[in-house]
Amino acid sequence: MKSESDFRLSCPIPIEEYPRVLLAHGGGGRLMGRLIEKIFLAAFRDSELDRRHDSAVLPWDRGRIALTTDSYVVHPLFFPGGDIGSLAVHGTVNDLAMSGARPLYLTAGYILEEGLPMETLWRAARSMGDAARASGVRVVAGDTKVVERGKGDGIFINTAGVGFLETDRLIGPESIRAGDAVLLSGDVGRHGMAILAVREGLEFESAITSDSAPVADPVLALLREGIDVRCLRDLTRGGLASALNEIAVSSSLGIRIDESLVPVREDVDAACAILGLDPLYVANEGRFIAFVCEAEADRTLAILRSYPVSAGACRIGETIGETPGVVSLRSRIGATRILDLLSGEQLPRIC
Amino acid sequence: MKSESDFRLSCPIPIEEYPRVLLAHGGGGRLMGRLIEKIFLAAFRDSELDRRHDSAVLPWDRGRIALTTDSYVVHPLFFPGGDIGSLAVHGTVNDLAMSGARPLYLTAGYILEEGLPMETLWRAARSMGDAARASGVRVVAGDTKVVERGKGDGIFINTAGVGFLETDRLIGPESIRAGDAVLLSGDVGRHGMAILAVREGLEFESAITSDSAPVADPVLALLREGIDVRCLRDLTRGGLASALNEIAVSSSLGIRIDESLVPVREDVDAACAILGLDPLYVANEGRFIAFVCEAEADRTLAILRSYPVSAGACRIGETIGETPGVVSLRSRIGATRILDLLSGEQLPRIC
Repeated sequence: MKSESDFRLSCPIPIEEYPRVLLAHGGGGRLMGRLIEKIFLAAFRDSELDRRHDSAVLPWDRGRIALTTDSYVVHPLFFPGGDIGSLAVHGTVNDLAMSGARPLYLTAGYILEEGLPMETLWRAARSMGDAARASGVRVVAGDTKVVERGKGDGIFINTAGVGFLETDRLIGPESIRAGDAVLLSGDVGRHGMAILAVREGLEFESAITSDSAPVADPVLALLREGIDVRCLRDLTRGGLASALNEIAVSSSLGIRIDESLVPVREDVDAACAILGLDPLYVANEGRFIAFVCEAEADRTLAILRSYPVSAGACRIGETIGETPGVVSLRSRIGATRILDLLSGEQLPRIC
Repeated sequence: MKSESDFRLSCPIPIEEYPRVLLAHGGGGRLMGRLIEKIFLAAFRDSELDRRHDSAVLPWDRGRIALTTDSYVVHPLFFPGGDIGSLAVHGTVNDLAMSGARPLYLTAGYILEEGLPMETLWRAARSMGDAARASGVRVVAGDTKVVERGKGDGIFINTAGVGFLETDRLIGPESIRAGDAVLLSGDVGRHGMAILAVREGLEFESAITSDSAPVADPVLALLREGIDVRCLRDLTRGGLASALNEIAVSSSLGIRIDESLVPVREDVDAACAILGLDPLYVANEGRFIAFVCEAEADRTLAILRSYPVSAGACRIGETIGETPGVVSLRSRIGATRILDLLSGEQLPRIC
């Protein structure tokens, strides 16, 4: 991992020239042209982006596309295990993967606050470019705006993603049947706790690192292997509990989960206990749930476990025909309670 | 046009319940679900958006797609002739049209500031939905984030757009040849001056209204009629002068423009004169330039003039093999000067 001073030295707009972003860097003139060329084109390196035309023009085969968008307002911009740039890639490619699509193209819309250190922008953009290449997607269109000091917060990034549907199946809550197995791709709660620890200056025995990562490879492997994937959902804001609740409502089925089967790392669990948070509601950025028919659950787990990002995949429960829309949790001490949707969010701005 | 009190009455989240946006409205819980359902799904009305899955899944024919993105941080949010919602549609569909693509799908990423009046959000979202339907595009994916008071500015909207390429031609600066005609779709400077007048509380004899409008219809008509369109560019930040400069550099050609041929409305011209602004650098949102071979210039103008949005189309100059990268302007008094790129922007946050 590069240090901050490495980014100061490598920043293509030298600190002597423009140490900070000016309002004029968003103005459509010479300064914006230089910002785009020196920072964004250098960070994202794509021939289509280099054309700098109004739209990227991209080849397409007959079929269906998936389209998604997310804005990233995470605070702080850099945290153990990731930063706003890599998050803006992972969050969006994961949304595409959840539809059974191979992520192909990203757009990048930056809203910068006047006064942002230029090296901070470079560091975030570099990380975004690196994460895109590592995830096998191209950043092919972009936009930059600058708002006055106090009207933004450093960097906001919006990414939209386009993917190619690799299946004819409709992957979504409407495809789930009663008796399907509910699988989880790994331990939960790391991303939210990593952010919170930095934000609040908390010191735990070991640094909790975010689970932020792209998950398209294991998902596409399931489809390639012919697994009858009913529904996929990545666990972001609101965590596992919120995702299960949304799906229970959309599918008009009940979901039954066993708390003892949901992996939570010891340090995450301890930090949650200290802060009075429930790890089932804490955000993740590299975790997803998969609903598959019971007969294929073991084969699905074996495929997922063969990829590092989902090596900790496990079965956590099943869907039931009774209590439609309700998620019930069998706790570690054997009691059953309803796992409800929270009204707001335990932790704002974690993505 | 609806009045503000109409929006207060029609806002689907009643003022007694949540008069303003809370941080929790961005938290992934029950409140966010309600905000999405009551405001965004009601405003955008699309079956694919209603699925509320991670990505929209869309049919596609063999061919090429165009992909673009823009963030909108316009201040104020509402202005004569438009608002941030309609602008977020027009700006993005116009970018697609500039590649010769038929705009089809939009994404909508909203970054809201805590405390935003709910009716303001409703008004902007409604306008965006109306503008999308009027432009023939569907809003199929969305995202909502809320940042703390003082970390944003009311509403920022990012839209990404996907379009279908209706031509095999490469429409871009690389296709321009020396001797091509430079056509302009109508009078310039209205959008920037409309924004500025509201922002600065200036009173002119008549209110200047923005030219914000979708321009895909006349552009696609040119392609349908077989016009050999070399390059198209919409005139946004930096105005006509900046667009011409970018194209002169990218095409390695000179561009010669006649100032007396560039239409500027009398009220815009007068307002610019008072404020010391050059209308050639002022932003537009419904104007574009087209480069076509000289022999087809008249037929192109006839087609453009048959559409209300480009009824004022005219020829303003031509490309030349000499002075590559330079835009020269023959002024009204007959002198020739170089029309340079400004360093920043005359007016920040006009889009």
